[in-house]
Amino acid sequence: MASDGATIRHATREDVPTILSLIHELALYEKSSSSVHATEELLTKTLSHADSSAPDNFTPGYAKTFLLTAPEGDICGMALYFYNYSTWTGVPGVYLEDLFVQPAYRKRGYGKTLIKACAKEVVRIGGKRLEWSCLAWNNPSLEFYASLGAKKKDEWVGLRAEGEELLKLAE
Amino acid sequence: MASDGATIRHATREDVPTILSLIHELALYEKSSSSVHATEELLTKTLSHADSSAPDNFTPGYAKTFLLTAPEGDICGMALYFYNYSTWTGVPGVYLEDLFVQPAYRKRGYGKTLIKACAKEVVRIGGKRLEWSCLAWNNPSLEFYASLGAKKKDEWVGLRAEGEELLKLAE
Repeated sequence: MASDGATIRHATREDVPTILSLIHELALYEKSSSSVHATEELLTKTLSHADSSAPDNFTPGYAKTFLLTAPEGDICGMALYFYNYSTWTGVPGVYLEDLFVQPAYRKRGYGKTLIKACAKEVVRIGGKRLEWSCLAWNNPSLEFYASLGAKKKDEWVGLRAEGEELLKLAE
Repeated sequence: MASDGATIRHATREDVPTILSLIHELALYEKSSSSVHATEELLTKTLSHADSSAPDNFTPGYAKTFLLTAPEGDICGMALYFYNYSTWTGVPGVYLEDLFVQPAYRKRGYGKTLIKACAKEVVRIGGKRLEWSCLAWNNPSLEFYASLGAKKKDEWVGLRAEGEELLKLAE
């Protein structure tokens, strides 16, 4: 729980419309709305949903979502993550894929509250690392993450094969 | 199967000693042997192992491993991967965490064969992206990956919280 009474829980299947709506808001904020191909059907099928009557039970899926509910009662933030793995450590970690707090609910520490929930999840699974990515020009976010103790992995560059190139590789 | 008769399969629990040995060889090659904290016990517990009598069945775990056997009969390469997730696409992808071919078996196209196995896995799960990372100064590897159609995500920087900083966040 955040200091102001905001609460965090794992999303259930019934939360899929809310998650999709937050994804669209995040994409709008990042000026990349046209990049969102997720649908309720896809999210229902691919995410791991908590059972609302037994929140420690999850359906099989590829990622989990924390939802933050403000004291006013609105779900205003999310952290969508999956488990990654490090061969060096021999244990899994958590990769925070998307973090979003609605603009009207910022400056309350909810971003940090969501990141802290992910850090707790790392510890819960016996992991050693919480990882995520940030646009390299986004200095306010980078400063915020540095204030949380995160280190930049700027000796690494990410690579991606998709579209025609991926299909050609898969032949 | 590679053109020279090399074969690829998913690792089973019995392959854990081989995987650990390849991890150590990779670390030695990267001059970071002291960073390897993985043990047979950890790998047995955290990896998802194929059932040798039913190779499509896997034990629960956080990452899977492809092993490549050369025509000479030696297991000489591996690709260790996990499933990641993109909210934009609403589908999972594959993240290639470690790729290694023993020096004596290089120049045979085995690296590409292992990457192709991962690309096929992306397609099999209905994904859109195969992703991995490379040290930014490693130009020979970056050129090789570019030749496979991979694009650099150099607008992004990776972040990591670990050690004391992670524990503080998890409080």
